[in-house]
Amino acid sequence: MTIELINTGSELMLGRALNTHQQWICRQMADLGYTVNRQVAIPDAPHEIEAAVRESLSRADLIITTGGLGPTSDDLTRDRIAGLLGRNLREDEEAVRRIEQFFAARRRPMPDKVKTQALVPEGAMVLQNAHGLAPGVAIEVDPNPFRPGNAPSLLIMLPGPPRELRPMFKDSVIPMLPNKLPLQNPFFSRTLRTVGIGESVIQERIGALIAELGIEVGYCARVSQVDIRLAALGNGSQKLIAAAEEIVRKHIGDYIFGLEEDTLESFIVRELTALGKTLATAESCTGGLIANQITNVPGASAVLLAGFVTYSNAAKEKFLGVRMETLKAHGAVSEATALEMAEAVRRETGADYALSVTGIAGPSGGTHEKPVGTVFVGLATPEKTIARKYYNPYDRETFKQVTAYQALDLLRRKLSAIA
Amino acid sequence: MTIELINTGSELMLGRALNTHQQWICRQMADLGYTVNRQVAIPDAPHEIEAAVRESLSRADLIITTGGLGPTSDDLTRDRIAGLLGRNLREDEEAVRRIEQFFAARRRPMPDKVKTQALVPEGAMVLQNAHGLAPGVAIEVDPNPFRPGNAPSLLIMLPGPPRELRPMFKDSVIPMLPNKLPLQNPFFSRTLRTVGIGESVIQERIGALIAELGIEVGYCARVSQVDIRLAALGNGSQKLIAAAEEIVRKHIGDYIFGLEEDTLESFIVRELTALGKTLATAESCTGGLIANQITNVPGASAVLLAGFVTYSNAAKEKFLGVRMETLKAHGAVSEATALEMAEAVRRETGADYALSVTGIAGPSGGTHEKPVGTVFVGLATPEKTIARKYYNPYDRETFKQVTAYQALDLLRRKLSAIA
Repeated sequence: MTIELINTGSELMLGRALNTHQQWICRQMADLGYTVNRQVAIPDAPHEIEAAVRESLSRADLIITTGGLGPTSDDLTRDRIAGLLGRNLREDEEAVRRIEQFFAARRRPMPDKVKTQALVPEGAMVLQNAHGLAPGVAIEVDPNPFRPGNAPSLLIMLPGPPRELRPMFKDSVIPMLPNKLPLQNPFFSRTLRTVGIGESVIQERIGALIAELGIEVGYCARVSQVDIRLAALGNGSQKLIAAAEEIVRKHIGDYIFGLEEDTLESFIVRELTALGKTLATAESCTGGLIANQITNVPGASAVLLAGFVTYSNAAKEKFLGVRMETLKAHGAVSEATALEMAEAVRRETGADYALSVTGIAGPSGGTHEKPVGTVFVGLATPEKTIARKYYNPYDRETFKQVTAYQALDLLRRKLSAIA
Repeated sequence: MTIELINTGSELMLGRALNTHQQWICRQMADLGYTVNRQVAIPDAPHEIEAAVRESLSRADLIITTGGLGPTSDDLTRDRIAGLLGRNLREDEEAVRRIEQFFAARRRPMPDKVKTQALVPEGAMVLQNAHGLAPGVAIEVDPNPFRPGNAPSLLIMLPGPPRELRPMFKDSVIPMLPNKLPLQNPFFSRTLRTVGIGESVIQERIGALIAELGIEVGYCARVSQVDIRLAALGNGSQKLIAAAEEIVRKHIGDYIFGLEEDTLESFIVRELTALGKTLATAESCTGGLIANQITNVPGASAVLLAGFVTYSNAAKEKFLGVRMETLKAHGAVSEATALEMAEAVRRETGADYALSVTGIAGPSGGTHEKPVGTVFVGLATPEKTIARKYYNPYDRETFKQVTAYQALDLLRRKLSAIA
């Protein structure tokens, strides 16, 4: 089976935008047992779009395009593909209704051009857009005039914005695959998500053992996190995957916080909710990132009582009740201050758990004793308060992210009763 | 001039790695006036590599490949391209010397396979690698047997790791361009960044006027923000761009917050720093995102006095001093509460400006009167306190992002003395 992905967008070719669609769609497909064989990015230009789609139609069973379904003059994908396939465009009633509703709900006048988004090629399946105005489209190109023997292809057009594309892919594209493009063999995969352990250490501990099972293992390293992906094709592969998971859990189980799409913050919100416990945060150098990540999880408001961003000593003293003596004796970036921030915010908010962070994100503010990247993370619990020192000498945003995960991981290990 | 980029790597096709090369290289080229016409990603497979390179050679003046120059069995790019061009590989003395030095300096035995990295196609220019072992390669394919009329192409192979590729591109590739691929005409571009105005409204207001000037205009829409990129080639284009910028500023100037790489939050930190003014935040449903974005900007700690994340009425009362009567009479999600939160946090922190947000991020918590997506944003200044109501019926993370930008934009407009 051959699968190709075409990303349209002049902003991609000008380097204005990162093509996150490639990784996301390829990952989704891989988790289902499909491999994307080629990905192409082209500008919003009629000739380029036609050429790329014609080439993919000459080779692939499935072609997915992204972008170019909006209302402006550089949204050409729908138009060019309909032209290439010799299909007229028709207005989809449901899509028109949704567009009109959108503007009515906002009491905003509807620009004329906006309705072009409701146009779809004749004979196409319409994939309604729950998060935007332009529907997606799936076309069975059968016979396919561009392919040897006129063999059929499935052509799917998705909108460019990730928040529209991703739900549409999950809700409309994935359910279509088993029927339209059935796999020859059963496929199983399992992704274990880890935090606080490096890719090469993981590989050293489990690589050889997994290889003996004869299944595929892949590592995907992000900031502070590594995903371990186990995959196998064929009968009996489900058992092999289960055996492999057992090996991984035996050797690095303490670092695993979840499966598949779990995030560290969703684990924490779920655990605290299940335990009926609450959390508060006092952040200096992470600047609200921890609270922000926690509150990305639906239901977080029941768990996070309050969060503080306190850079200055004055704010630490006034709002958290950190003692000026502690700040003076040990400095704002110190184990003593981290401990007191965590205790103070726990006391002031009445939360069961409190996280604190104080450090030097940079690029300036470092000293010889405490260079940029130095950070202390504190955790206050009903039983005790602990603090850990880390050294994260990265750019500012990476520093914040790494530090936030270290703090969340400290809480995770406490909630999971690890060490 | 036609330019194509080929990224090799099976990890790209499995969605294990994000293709940052595309954006980085395309951006570098665009800033120099070159446009990449097509980018292709393929797995580390001999047939796919040959097919993609052959196709690009049939079309492009410049082809850049990334990846596949390492020592392992899936590093096939060098080999396959030499084969395709009918050139033998020779060992580059300087590259061998660097590899030997590398292992000698680390007192590590040199694996046999590692020297394959010093192999380069005959007649190629060698681009030494200052940060790794595999050199890059530039080949003038002249005559080019794959192209109509055997017109020449320049083929450049770069190593995959970004920390090797990027310096090599800057040190070796960019200096080569004016000589090997001279631009016919001088090139100018300008990107204007806007917030709070939709892509189709922008196009309605300026599209026809810019088109009259005969220059290229592109729109790149993100959450709440649209970039407008003006570009022109040829003598006099600098004047045309300036004229176009004037038109854009005349018609939608109030929505422009910056140029090129500016962000809304960097604008605000820069403005506040220049004015010697300070900021505090009181966030409910944005959960710390505003503070987090502000603190992503270096130097933010001098500007942001404190940030509060207060979900519960109790926290709003205790830490901000919002009156329980206000909360009871109007509800936590109300104009009155937004006003009082902003005033309270300004008073408590002593900041010059204070932003407040209270709303319903969802997915639950909505009512008929105040559906999910309802949000009030407040701004307290030395002169007065204002609040705005918005309706942002999006998924949770998008809701937070849109709302955060609305709050930051309210402050931007105040700082820029707009309406």
